[in-house]
Amino acid sequence: MNDVTRILASFIVDARLDDLPDGVVHEAKRSLLHWIGCAVGGSQEPSVVRALSTVAEFSGRPQASVLGRQERLDILLAALINGISTDVLSFGDTHPETLIHPTGVIGPAVLALAERNRTSGKALLHALILGFEVASRVSLAVYPWHYTRGWHITGTAGVFGAAAAAGKLLGLDERRLTWALGIAATQAAGLREMFGSMCKNLHTGHAARNGLLAAFLAKNDFTSSDNGIGAPRGFAHVLGEPPNLACITNGLGETYEILKNTYKPFPCGVVIHPVIDGCLFLRTSHRVDPDRIRCITLRVNPLVVELTGRKDPVSTLEGKLSVYHSAAAAFIAGKVGEQEYRPEFIASSDTVALRKKVSARIDEAIREDEAEISIELADGTTLHHHVDHATGSAQRPMSDGDMEDKLRGLCEPLLTKDRTLQLMEACWRVTEIDDASILASLARRD
Amino acid sequence: MNDVTRILASFIVDARLDDLPDGVVHEAKRSLLHWIGCAVGGSQEPSVVRALSTVAEFSGRPQASVLGRQERLDILLAALINGISTDVLSFGDTHPETLIHPTGVIGPAVLALAERNRTSGKALLHALILGFEVASRVSLAVYPWHYTRGWHITGTAGVFGAAAAAGKLLGLDERRLTWALGIAATQAAGLREMFGSMCKNLHTGHAARNGLLAAFLAKNDFTSSDNGIGAPRGFAHVLGEPPNLACITNGLGETYEILKNTYKPFPCGVVIHPVIDGCLFLRTSHRVDPDRIRCITLRVNPLVVELTGRKDPVSTLEGKLSVYHSAAAAFIAGKVGEQEYRPEFIASSDTVALRKKVSARIDEAIREDEAEISIELADGTTLHHHVDHATGSAQRPMSDGDMEDKLRGLCEPLLTKDRTLQLMEACWRVTEIDDASILASLARRD
Repeated sequence: MNDVTRILASFIVDARLDDLPDGVVHEAKRSLLHWIGCAVGGSQEPSVVRALSTVAEFSGRPQASVLGRQERLDILLAALINGISTDVLSFGDTHPETLIHPTGVIGPAVLALAERNRTSGKALLHALILGFEVASRVSLAVYPWHYTRGWHITGTAGVFGAAAAAGKLLGLDERRLTWALGIAATQAAGLREMFGSMCKNLHTGHAARNGLLAAFLAKNDFTSSDNGIGAPRGFAHVLGEPPNLACITNGLGETYEILKNTYKPFPCGVVIHPVIDGCLFLRTSHRVDPDRIRCITLRVNPLVVELTGRKDPVSTLEGKLSVYHSAAAAFIAGKVGEQEYRPEFIASSDTVALRKKVSARIDEAIREDEAEISIELADGTTLHHHVDHATGSAQRPMSDGDMEDKLRGLCEPLLTKDRTLQLMEACWRVTEIDDASILASLARRD
Repeated sequence: MNDVTRILASFIVDARLDDLPDGVVHEAKRSLLHWIGCAVGGSQEPSVVRALSTVAEFSGRPQASVLGRQERLDILLAALINGISTDVLSFGDTHPETLIHPTGVIGPAVLALAERNRTSGKALLHALILGFEVASRVSLAVYPWHYTRGWHITGTAGVFGAAAAAGKLLGLDERRLTWALGIAATQAAGLREMFGSMCKNLHTGHAARNGLLAAFLAKNDFTSSDNGIGAPRGFAHVLGEPPNLACITNGLGETYEILKNTYKPFPCGVVIHPVIDGCLFLRTSHRVDPDRIRCITLRVNPLVVELTGRKDPVSTLEGKLSVYHSAAAAFIAGKVGEQEYRPEFIASSDTVALRKKVSARIDEAIREDEAEISIELADGTTLHHHVDHATGSAQRPMSDGDMEDKLRGLCEPLLTKDRTLQLMEACWRVTEIDDASILASLARRD
């Protein structure tokens, strides 16, 4: 019963989109739309520009689009760069039980492949659903030890999702899909130490490219272990302690992890979101003037300080990993978007002054999507707000309209309003599209 | 003092070949010659053919040679394929304290780079020495826990060697070299579960390509952690327990790990070598007729059975991981080369019959390069031989002449005698060569 790699492969081979509940299909459309928005929105950032200028020299013939840009690359490098773009704004989707950002890895792999091999929108969406399922279940098998140990789960477990999805689209049989997952297993990489540097973004792209390569290698009979995930020296035992392999197989094909998917309203570490929610609520409902704030006290889950405890951020990446900066930004700007993580904003004297007034108390009793905000004003008034579930959490999901707003915000500046609208419509009706590469055509710049 | 990544980077930046003892330079020439032989010799194997046919489509313009073959690829993919070729015969060099095979990772990266950027033989050899130093020291910091846990150290630690060597050749400054090592750290991958499948070979190529890419990314200011190796969530702490960071810095620039390098006389798992030595000795010195053997009993270090305990190998890769097969082959063929690991030989009735008569007893008191062989003949005679150190071990190194013989055996069938001789001479006088790409020209097929 530890033959989990073959069980996953068999599930992928046999799966049919028509067997899926409508809810799963709709959530997958949301994930797709949201992912493309993130990739386009991130496409002009320095991580992307530097990686792209590095790899362009090594690209094979242009097969696939770099989203949000004019360049075209071979599909492996397109997957790499689009993965980096997806992650760079820290705006991707999150499987809340494991903190993996699955679609940022799987999306780049399947869309690049759809530009090489004619692929229906239905097949693309189905591959995305299956990749999401595999990446999330492998994550569940090793979380939380894996993450605590220092692994960036989007890199390490994401690669399985890309391999599974690409393997489905390439029509691999069970044996070759088993190998593809094994080839993915032995490329699994990514350290949390890299948070705050461009390498964090690299993990997503690296996993997308490597998962795609794994499927191509397996297709050509490049062999791997028959149980790269579950064997005693396979992924789960080496990168988990102890792994819970039942998470991979229990209810497989009956329940769908993508139904748990969450999306971020704010472009920063997801554990900061309840704090931002609470700060924005206090500012709006009490018309708080940030100049009059004496101190801001946060009561948060321990992970908030562990992951986002940077007191003096300088770069955008560091700002997005600072709960202190994010709280201050919410009060100063009344919104928390890309603008509030630009280095100029982070370094502005107002922001620095207010950031110094923010303190965080950790409390084991507070969940990760919960927070309590207390502020004291110059006149001695104190205000409190308790956020039970952050916007974008499973309990308070973003609506389809919120998703469209987010897509617009990310894409319109780069693709024009009209093109963004077409892209949005193509995502919603993706299962009716004969050739899914239209999504890439709409999301690139001419 | 845990700032090991920067310390390594600083060492690499400041290092000068002229400061090195002659012994180090000579050992590096042996390593280079030996590596090229392995890569050429492995170049026709199925792992290489399948990987090459997979990636050819994605190659950028042809910048570098696939050794032993006619194809040319961009330098990243050439490094990938040449790394696979190096490993496929299980014939690469070994740093005996950690079991890493460093040159198979570093060689492909530096030689590909020398085909892109004009590089003197001196610079190439120096980069190889530095890469070896870095890969071995990082290995020492995490061995043995790392290996026992299930990591294939050639993949995981090898990538640092390729990044260091490529970074030196690209002239990176300390900050960028620190990033290159960080980018390497976060790509470190490779599971021992893959032993016996083509993925084992992939690890070497993957590390070569990823290390090379790391150096190029860092050159373009793609940022990473400032301590990707030594930070609390860096490579050494996540993949070691507890890591010994002093191994990275103690004596750095004073002692050279490449002086410990060992080379294999037999194309199989290095822990099998003392057994083969002993079996060949008994066969020759007592003119043993394999048909008259009743049983063969081996007394070996526990790792021998753990790593090479396959009783019924079928493929070449499995044969190379079977101490039982290797012992039987030594008695039947009187030599143990590629021929004795071909599937036909492995499946032949003589071999199968004798293999069944081999048993292994593990003994903690036996070192990894030691073995005791006892055989009983049909007439009741028993013969014993104790191998204190295997040929190719640090205590009984292969001579320069042995190395030349090995190169000839690997290269002549593919490159002709004359070309092999030129290649050999070019390796011995590499420090006098203006353009090191000549090594690649000599080692490819026209």
